[in-house]
Amino acid sequence: MSKKVAVILSGCGVYDGAEIQESVITLLRLDQRGAQVQCFAPDIVQLQVINHLTGEQMSESRNVLVESARIARGNVKDLREASVEDFDALIVPGGFGAAKNLSNFAVEGAGCTVQPELLALTEAFAEAGKPVGLICISPALAAKIYGPGVTCTIGTDVDTAAAVTKMGGIHEDCAVTDIVEDTARKLVSTPAYMLAQNISEAASGINKLVDRVLELTHENDE
Amino acid sequence: MSKKVAVILSGCGVYDGAEIQESVITLLRLDQRGAQVQCFAPDIVQLQVINHLTGEQMSESRNVLVESARIARGNVKDLREASVEDFDALIVPGGFGAAKNLSNFAVEGAGCTVQPELLALTEAFAEAGKPVGLICISPALAAKIYGPGVTCTIGTDVDTAAAVTKMGGIHEDCAVTDIVEDTARKLVSTPAYMLAQNISEAASGINKLVDRVLELTHENDE
Repeated sequence: MSKKVAVILSGCGVYDGAEIQESVITLLRLDQRGAQVQCFAPDIVQLQVINHLTGEQMSESRNVLVESARIARGNVKDLREASVEDFDALIVPGGFGAAKNLSNFAVEGAGCTVQPELLALTEAFAEAGKPVGLICISPALAAKIYGPGVTCTIGTDVDTAAAVTKMGGIHEDCAVTDIVEDTARKLVSTPAYMLAQNISEAASGINKLVDRVLELTHENDE
Repeated sequence: MSKKVAVILSGCGVYDGAEIQESVITLLRLDQRGAQVQCFAPDIVQLQVINHLTGEQMSESRNVLVESARIARGNVKDLREASVEDFDALIVPGGFGAAKNLSNFAVEGAGCTVQPELLALTEAFAEAGKPVGLICISPALAAKIYGPGVTCTIGTDVDTAAAVTKMGGIHEDCAVTDIVEDTARKLVSTPAYMLAQNISEAASGINKLVDRVLELTHENDE
C-alpha cells in the first residue's frame, strides 16, 4: 500500500523561498520509494524577492503558491486544502522561505510565529502521531509546533541552535549525512544546506530523512 | 582526475525556463560522479514569464541569468564567460527555456535560430570532439549545432520529431529510461519530461545520460 506524503513548499529559491535542490531531492526520493506525493504551499505574498545572483532585494512581488508551482511543475495545491486525514506523513524542505514565508523566524528569531495554516496542519500531524520530516532551517519551527521538549537539529550553527533552545526545543548537533529523530513525536530532522558543501552531501541526509519518515508511517499500520 | 562539466540553464521553471527537476537531477548525478560543475546562463530577458499554477502569461519581466541563479544557489556565470578550453563536457537540461530563451524553437519550429552565445559555445564543443548531453526538448537544437545528419531523440513526439527531421537531424524514438547516442559526434540525448510520467522516470534517463557523457570524456584522455 503506497504511502501518501504532503510536501510543503515555500516559494522557489533558497534566499526567498523553498531551497530548490532540497525540494527536488525530497520529491525524487519519495517517488523512488513508491510514495504518493502532493505538494502544497500557502497562497500568500512572499516576504521578499531576492536576486539570487547578487543577493540583493528586488522591488517586485511574488506569490508563494505561484512560485512553488515552478518546482512542482504546476502540481501544487493551496495549503488550506491540506488535511491530515489525507496523508500518512508530511515533509518541509528548507530554504529561507521556511523562515520568511512559512514563519517569521528570519525576522523575529525565537519570538517567531508560524504561518497559521501550516501551524494548524503540522499540529494536526503531531496530534495524530503521524511522522513529520523537517529539513535544513525548517526544524527551527519544531518547538512552535510540538511545544517544549521536542528534539531536533539544524546542524551545528550556534546562533540558530540557541534560538531553538530558547523556544524550548532540545537541539542536537548533527552531521550533514545524518538525521536526528524525536522518537516519541515521530519528528525527523536533517541539516542539509545548513551544513552541506555540495548537492551530494545535502542528498545524503535528505534521503535518510525520507526513508526514515516512510518507515515511521508503517508503525501507524499496526 | 575530476572532469569539468558546464551545465547550461535557461531560467527557472519548466514553462518559461529550465526544467527545475531535470536540472537538479543533472547537478546531483554529476556531483555524485565526482565531476566539477559550473552552471552558465545567458544574461538576457526571458521570452515570457508564465504563471506555473495557471499556465497563463504574466505581465512581468525576468532575466534568464538571474532566475537560473535560483537553481544554482547563486553559483551561475554569464554564458559569455564559458570557454570550451575550461571544460571536458557540456550538458543542457530541458524545459521551455531551451525553446524560448536558448533558441526560438517554441515560436519558429524548424526555422529556429539558436541563441548566439550558446551556438558558438556548443559548436566549439562539437569542433573539439568534446561530449555534449542534451535533455528533453534541448535536442531540438542538435541539427543547428552539428549540422545535417546528427542523430538525437526528443522521445516519441511526432511533431517535434518531424521538426528535427526538417532541420536535417535524424530522429530516433527513445524510451524515457534510455538514451540515444551519436557516436561520431559524441552527442547524447534523452527524453526526460518529453515522456516522463514522474520524477523517477526522468531521473532514470538523465542519470544514464550523465554517466555516458562522463564516460565519453575519458575517450579524450588518450
